Amino acid sequence: MKPLLGANESHPAHIVNAHGSSPFVLICEHASNAVPEKLGDLGLSNEDRQRHIAWDIGAAGVSLGLSQLLDAPLIMQCYSRLVYDCNRPPESEGAMPVVSEVFTIPGNAQLSADDRLARTSGVYRPFMDAIQKLLDRRAAHGQRAIPVSIHSFTRVYRGQEREVELGLLFDRDDWLAQKLVGNFPGVNTQFNEPYGPQDGVMHLMNLIAAPRGLKHLMIEVRNDLITEEAGQKAWAERLAQALRKAVH
Amino acid sequence: MKPLLGANESHPAHIVNAHGSSPFVLICEHASNAVPEKLGDLGLSNEDRQRHIAWDIGAAGVSLGLSQLLDAPLIMQCYSRLVYDCNRPPESEGAMPVVSEVFTIPGNAQLSADDRLARTSGVYRPFMDAIQKLLDRRAAHGQRAIPVSIHSFTRVYRGQEREVELGLLFDRDDWLAQKLVGNFPGVNTQFNEPYGPQDGVMHLMNLIAAPRGLKHLMIEVRNDLITEEAGQKAWAERLAQALRKAVH
Repeated sequence: MKPLLGANESHPAHIVNAHGSSPFVLICEHASNAVPEKLGDLGLSNEDRQRHIAWDIGAAGVSLGLSQLLDAPLIMQCYSRLVYDCNRPPESEGAMPVVSEVFTIPGNAQLSADDRLARTSGVYRPFMDAIQKLLDRRAAHGQRAIPVSIHSFTRVYRGQEREVELGLLFDRDDWLAQKLVGNFPGVNTQFNEPYGPQDGVMHLMNLIAAPRGLKHLMIEVRNDLITEEAGQKAWAERLAQALRKAVH
Repeated sequence: MKPLLGANESHPAHIVNAHGSSPFVLICEHASNAVPEKLGDLGLSNEDRQRHIAWDIGAAGVSLGLSQLLDAPLIMQCYSRLVYDCNRPPESEGAMPVVSEVFTIPGNAQLSADDRLARTSGVYRPFMDAIQKLLDRRAAHGQRAIPVSIHSFTRVYRGQEREVELGLLFDRDDWLAQKLVGNFPGVNTQFNEPYGPQDGVMHLMNLIAAPRGLKHLMIEVRNDLITEEAGQKAWAERLAQALRKAVH
């Protein structure tokens, strides 16, 4: 099996502020729409690779803002979810999707076992390892860790408009969601919307947070609100304020 | 931080029959009572390091027998649970216990952050990585995987005698437990006895199996039944028969 990434390409986990003092550990697994050189353009146009199917539009900007405002470590995935969706296990069809929403991904059709393993070993596994190592270090130092992942979703999905603006997503652990929910006046805030655990979106948290007994949360912001830098900054401030309050 | 293991010491994961054809992937995280040279005897007598506190007596023998009978891969931990209990997360006090049952472990008292991290990075993390890599490979090949861990428990615990002989342990996924339960005539078989998810014993399965959507089970055999080789062989045969039947 040949490695997916070239020697000069980024490690899949980009860690910002690794030793941040905040109890929150931020994760943005859909931060980037980059595709490793070896995979070309995955058979997609430039335009399609800018769409939500490739990444969570605005999520990286919000995450970086939050990391700075909270002095929190942030782990960002450097490659597109079309290469490997780090919120899906290797067993899932969604990990290397052949179809995403209404788009077919030619570069993901007819992957061999070696192709699949190269994506898993090259992108998913080192990303998860980087998160686990950061959390291992905090555990050894008795430092609190509350993993929070930052996502965005499209306003219109398969022709249907979504009213929800902020989704607080959890499986068994609603602690942080309950703490936060009352702190967004004027924002349409919902639990487990527009997705929930039944859609398999709690994979990352069920892997890196729940088995450790760590409180955690997945946050979804509607992407029309954070497409531009101003919106990203405003939402980073809004979320930072609510998160700070939750742990006081 | 200095590494825990010397250059000539075993990797913490010993993999047997890595490419076995069975759908079952066997795991024995309490297989060994060995202590890395650097940690000496952990302040315990030879006798105490033979007790249940250090390992699951008989579990390695049953696991090896099962691996052979089923043609199943088996991943065994090479170091004592007193060094690091791989069925506990790094956040847990039980990961490097200062007290186990009624025994104090002098070598685990007053561990520094570096000591704790060396144990986690040296034993727990590479063991989990080895399991994940094996499962990643099976996923890439579309090969079924049903993780099953093999444990043993003491007949007398804190002065109380246990009647249960075989425990089938699960958290959310009772599929395999239900398939197996009727197949042990004359054996006192119980669900989630003598431990259950409320005791934190589903950590390994909640880490390596549940987030992947893999059916799984933790098996506990009372250790007086498998102390000797003959008992280990008989139980390996009994379990192999029931497991084979479950996937037919």
